[in-house]
Amino acid sequence: MSEATGRHVVAARSGLALRVEAGAEVEVIDLGGGQIVDTWAFNASDVSEFHSAEHTRVEVGGLFPAIGESFVTNRRRPILQLVADDSPGIHDLLIAACDPTRYEQLGVAGWHASCQENLIAQMAAAGFHEIAVPQPINLFMNTPADAAGRIQWLATETMPGDSVTLRAVMDLWLVVSACPQDVTGINRAPGPIEVRVRPAPPASEDHG
Amino acid sequence: MSEATGRHVVAARSGLALRVEAGAEVEVIDLGGGQIVDTWAFNASDVSEFHSAEHTRVEVGGLFPAIGESFVTNRRRPILQLVADDSPGIHDLLIAACDPTRYEQLGVAGWHASCQENLIAQMAAAGFHEIAVPQPINLFMNTPADAAGRIQWLATETMPGDSVTLRAVMDLWLVVSACPQDVTGINRAPGPIEVRVRPAPPASEDHG
Repeated sequence: MSEATGRHVVAARSGLALRVEAGAEVEVIDLGGGQIVDTWAFNASDVSEFHSAEHTRVEVGGLFPAIGESFVTNRRRPILQLVADDSPGIHDLLIAACDPTRYEQLGVAGWHASCQENLIAQMAAAGFHEIAVPQPINLFMNTPADAAGRIQWLATETMPGDSVTLRAVMDLWLVVSACPQDVTGINRAPGPIEVRVRPAPPASEDHG
Repeated sequence: MSEATGRHVVAARSGLALRVEAGAEVEVIDLGGGQIVDTWAFNASDVSEFHSAEHTRVEVGGLFPAIGESFVTNRRRPILQLVADDSPGIHDLLIAACDPTRYEQLGVAGWHASCQENLIAQMAAAGFHEIAVPQPINLFMNTPADAAGRIQWLATETMPGDSVTLRAVMDLWLVVSACPQDVTGINRAPGPIEVRVRPAPPASEDHG
């Protein structure tokens, strides 16, 4: 399996899995604005190790990493570093991915695309048929808890072209889903996203 | 496997798994005060379904259920209902269970008991050798996020005999761990807990 590089456009409501090598940078771009991106990371050599929100909160001592801090796995090892945030800086690590049951509970009749189905389909296409469904990194999602601990379901504040850049700390599978949620109003309207992968710089040489 | 009833004392730093039938009530008691209890619930007929913090937050629209509300599984089905809270009412659904790596990172030399090891050992003894390690329901744990999103590592405020009562909404395996964390100060001192299981009332009959 070769590592992904270059630009990848992901259609509205769709997902994409990319094999990313350690050191590469991944820029996740909200092309049209107002679009949440559910994001997961799995250790490429053992997908039972994956990004874990509850371990990241302990690692960084807060609800979301700051620039320079790392997301960690369920084995407390860094997997993604937050390198840059060219967005309003509002993201979520509290809310489960949408799934068929969520849309059924919201009153949708018939099938509706969901981030959980996108994750499972993309990882299956990559050869992984038995995976956990971890809490996503919900980029650009604006659902903070208020002082009383109530979740506020607010619209995403991103503008077209807003982005977040993550560095792969280990070889990993990155999965993104352009969240198809169009019932609760947290996306302005489901739109496409773009993922740009810049390869790791060549190993530095000693020119002394 | 018969369902658990009656009183079960769990020694400091230890865990216990109990098979609880739907409708039974489980009272979790902090015997000495100042003690966190990590709690998990697994569907007894399929342990790949388990309590999920990120799905519960969506279900209740907040960081923790109120009295009468239910914790739900990764399939968005109620598994435990919060029936009564005879404690300061401060609990956590954000922080991962302590594990050997956590104690190593905190500078502990050699083995240290942990909630994750208690969970895995108790479920293995019950015959389940392949389980997820979900975010625990951290009863009595006082680690809120402040307005800036920073986790505050505060001491548990429970007094001796404080308790929480949960009703099993499905047949389930309940696992509790008297959290052995004695480095960060969130427990006053690791102490024992008690679990009282009251069986489901007999099915009501129609006396008309």
